[in-house]
Amino acid sequence: MRRTIDWADGSIVVIDQTALPAEYRLLHLRTVGELVDAIKRLAVRGAPALGAAGALGVALAARTSDDVHADAELIATARPTAVNLAWGVERAMKKLRQGADAVLDEALALLAEDEELNKTASKHAAGIVLEECGTRPLRLLSHCNAGQLATVGWGSALGVVWHLHARGLVEEVLVDETRPLLQGARLTAWELAQANVPYRVQPDSAAAAAMARGMVDCVLVGADRIAANGDVANKIGTYALAIAAKHHGVPFVVVAPSSTVDSTLADGAGVAIEERDARELTAFAGVPITPPDATVFNPAFDVTPHDLITAVVTEHGRFEP
Amino acid sequence: MRRTIDWADGSIVVIDQTALPAEYRLLHLRTVGELVDAIKRLAVRGAPALGAAGALGVALAARTSDDVHADAELIATARPTAVNLAWGVERAMKKLRQGADAVLDEALALLAEDEELNKTASKHAAGIVLEECGTRPLRLLSHCNAGQLATVGWGSALGVVWHLHARGLVEEVLVDETRPLLQGARLTAWELAQANVPYRVQPDSAAAAAMARGMVDCVLVGADRIAANGDVANKIGTYALAIAAKHHGVPFVVVAPSSTVDSTLADGAGVAIEERDARELTAFAGVPITPPDATVFNPAFDVTPHDLITAVVTEHGRFEP
Repeated sequence: MRRTIDWADGSIVVIDQTALPAEYRLLHLRTVGELVDAIKRLAVRGAPALGAAGALGVALAARTSDDVHADAELIATARPTAVNLAWGVERAMKKLRQGADAVLDEALALLAEDEELNKTASKHAAGIVLEECGTRPLRLLSHCNAGQLATVGWGSALGVVWHLHARGLVEEVLVDETRPLLQGARLTAWELAQANVPYRVQPDSAAAAAMARGMVDCVLVGADRIAANGDVANKIGTYALAIAAKHHGVPFVVVAPSSTVDSTLADGAGVAIEERDARELTAFAGVPITPPDATVFNPAFDVTPHDLITAVVTEHGRFEP
Repeated sequence: MRRTIDWADGSIVVIDQTALPAEYRLLHLRTVGELVDAIKRLAVRGAPALGAAGALGVALAARTSDDVHADAELIATARPTAVNLAWGVERAMKKLRQGADAVLDEALALLAEDEELNKTASKHAAGIVLEECGTRPLRLLSHCNAGQLATVGWGSALGVVWHLHARGLVEEVLVDETRPLLQGARLTAWELAQANVPYRVQPDSAAAAAMARGMVDCVLVGADRIAANGDVANKIGTYALAIAAKHHGVPFVVVAPSSTVDSTLADGAGVAIEERDARELTAFAGVPITPPDATVFNPAFDVTPHDLITAVVTEHGRFEP
């Protein structure tokens, strides 16, 4: 499938991101319940892709549900942090009075736009990265997955890598594995391998040491919600990376479509941070890795204040608070 | 077994740290080859415990080997970063001319000292922590394992927790899981659970976010090698933690016996950093977590410059460069 998420034969089709990299598998989601489950267990994830899931979910509800409004609410609140999910739901809901086909058309328009907007945003960001680092083969650091799999297609932060790689300007991508769900090791590494971009996977905790060794020219990350002042909520660990990048004078660039901007939030303090299940940290592949009674601190996201960020870049270019 | 490593019936007995927390299992190491293998695969680990392993290894070689010098070299170089390993070997080797029993006596003296020195060092450190934070129940952050299991007994950084907990001054320990080998989630959590100290396990990358939320009063870590100027080599991720602690004004305290000081090194730049096998990052419990051809950056340690450290504490008190 060319897209991470699409519509086919009356169902939402997504690449099952829990199965990668071992298996490339498509899921056909035929009910709102199946979609909400897929969102909650991160079979589909990434803020822009969640925007598409929100809109397609309303399209699905409009065709199958007795109570589209209730279903829309279920979808919009399936995960709390990425603003795009509720944004996609709202955008599709505005067409509900015009009928199910109009809702679907709107959702499909959103999907097409997402791909284009991410291409444009990452092209702007690539230019900013070259301004900051100089036009030469770069060593880039990636956290979580902000690639094709986090969007409808192309990618946001990883989209910058595609633009630069096409120009021969990527020496290596250091890939934070991104505990606990390993979106870097599993998904970003898979995308880079598919695209023949040189990469190495590292523990999240090695990023600062890599910077100290002079192995990192620029950090590239996506975003789940951007506040009006430019504070950025993104995958847990983004904040630690930004502190380390500032300490080493390494540029720190955030790339996202403008649908990730939440202008109702003055700053990042207001972002609801999802806490996820303890089992993500207490076991792996069914093997316990903590004592049986262990409790955890497992926030899925953190907030990076704007003063640690070199540039937040959308399809409109550099985001100005 | 009261000690992490000891001598019994002509063999070195260690708690198998690869089996915890699922299973408490003892290994009886009867040859130098078995010992070197146990060191390399981290069945016994932690700088002070490696010092004991080095000395007991020479005692074993003195009883069983045709070439004690060659065996001593094999043991001393089994892992490169912790200075204690070679230190333990050298100390025991000085008694070789006096015979195998003298070597064993010296090794056993080293073991007894290690426990006492860590108790003393961590008592000094507890005092410094209370000076820095005030005498109240504290939220402490731990990285890797610097507890009983990293030493002959008691522990270094975790020794501070035992002293403070005995006085009712530990509210919680946040335990970095410590990828890739999860010494925090597996070993530190196990020790804290045994001692009924409240704790939560977190992804390494969540530590900075926890500091930003005001959840951390002090960071406590051990050390694998301390340079003359006070730079500290310790488990990968220590450096990132120290940068984050400085950013948040959180005290950052290193605790180790003075056998961890390498006065031949002017600063941390000279520390040999072990790079470990790619498989630590590409699979877990036999399940692949990266594409099959993934390469990695997997340094086991990093170096924290002394200016990020509030205090390095040994049995002599605050280490003065």
